[in-house]
Amino acid sequence: MLGDIGFDFLRVFYNTHVHSTPTLSYSLNFKGIPFKTVWIEYPDIEKTLKDLGIAACATKPDGKTPLYTLPAIYDPVTKTGLTESFAIAKYLDEKYPDKPTLVPRGTETLQKAYIDATMSKSDALWQFVLPKTTWSLNERSEEHFRRGKQTLSKTMEEMYPQGEKRKEEWKRLEEDFGQIDKWFGKEDILVMGEEGKVCFADFAFAGFVIWIRIVFGKESEEWKDVSGWQSGRWGRMIQTLEKYE
Amino acid sequence: MLGDIGFDFLRVFYNTHVHSTPTLSYSLNFKGIPFKTVWIEYPDIEKTLKDLGIAACATKPDGKTPLYTLPAIYDPVTKTGLTESFAIAKYLDEKYPDKPTLVPRGTETLQKAYIDATMSKSDALWQFVLPKTTWSLNERSEEHFRRGKQTLSKTMEEMYPQGEKRKEEWKRLEEDFGQIDKWFGKEDILVMGEEGKVCFADFAFAGFVIWIRIVFGKESEEWKDVSGWQSGRWGRMIQTLEKYE
Repeated sequence: MLGDIGFDFLRVFYNTHVHSTPTLSYSLNFKGIPFKTVWIEYPDIEKTLKDLGIAACATKPDGKTPLYTLPAIYDPVTKTGLTESFAIAKYLDEKYPDKPTLVPRGTETLQKAYIDATMSKSDALWQFVLPKTTWSLNERSEEHFRRGKQTLSKTMEEMYPQGEKRKEEWKRLEEDFGQIDKWFGKEDILVMGEEGKVCFADFAFAGFVIWIRIVFGKESEEWKDVSGWQSGRWGRMIQTLEKYE
Repeated sequence: MLGDIGFDFLRVFYNTHVHSTPTLSYSLNFKGIPFKTVWIEYPDIEKTLKDLGIAACATKPDGKTPLYTLPAIYDPVTKTGLTESFAIAKYLDEKYPDKPTLVPRGTETLQKAYIDATMSKSDALWQFVLPKTTWSLNERSEEHFRRGKQTLSKTMEEMYPQGEKRKEEWKRLEEDFGQIDKWFGKEDILVMGEEGKVCFADFAFAGFVIWIRIVFGKESEEWKDVSGWQSGRWGRMIQTLEKYE
């Protein structure tokens, strides 16, 4: 087991390439826990996690076969490995109580609902970022990634919107982000608002939004659009959290 | 103006009949603010609110015509009337700072997201409760209510699921509630969990769930089902909040 060879630092296991949203690295930097990142190709995820004794947190579409997902962590201090970023956030809060808290008492259900709601509202995003992600992978990971997405009714190439359809779907994404915007007070940047407290839900949604910047690039028209939507709310959000990137 | 004739107590304006979910009366009882309920027939809502100088908080599907909705309140102490239950909750917190808080600092965005998410997940519910509500109204309100729902693609009678379809849709509602259940810690009954604190989001979702009890009846199979789903979570939730009903 990799665990036995002794890690000096907490390890974060991420997919190679652009598919990696930085929710977990945001969270670890916020807590001030030193870590090293291990980049893993898609076909190697299952073996790596099994070798570390990290349990799968989901099942494949058949409902039975364990589905091994990233990100995951392995903490050499407690010899514990786990996966799924909310579970990891709770683990970190529990094991490192002296560090800033990602999920303050009484906010767990609310944060989970917020994350679920922001993902549901952003469903127009997948058709843009999934194909872009696929095309950026190396051959080995790409083949594996496409196979994992075979339950989708379309290929990545069919999914990626073109021409008028692209304009419409991009507009739809802007409107959907507008629904999320309405939950915020006008001056608020963070989910917990005026308190100025950062919480895990901020990192979860920011990690999702920044995916657009990752796949299209910092200078792209797409990122400029998103940064400017809703009076610049999302641009300001990413900027405020930049110190944890 | 009704306001000028002098109310002794805060007034809550509710639709007559079963359409009234108790979110606001829960909230006022929780805060311990005495109030009297004024029951209004659907066709009288607009005039009543206009007479009290209460602004509409939404527009009709044309995007322009003001849409006057209930519940609303009129507070004789501040001579203020307003509508939309989250806005009312915030008003009550602000004007009655010595009373228990419905929207604790830092939870507004999270509570709004929770309410939006629970409503979105429960979309299978409308086809049951909207027709049942319609059929319980008196003639004058029923006609008005049906007219207001003409933008829906189906009549109430077409919408109400029958036979196998009914079983499937009821099952779908149970599964959708199961998604909400997953956000809660196993022992939690309230949204803010272990803290034991009640907040507005509890009243909003409970007000929605209890609609099932209102339209089908306390002894109905439907209410027994819902109370028992997810190891009795929703039954326990309603029971815990009963003292504020």
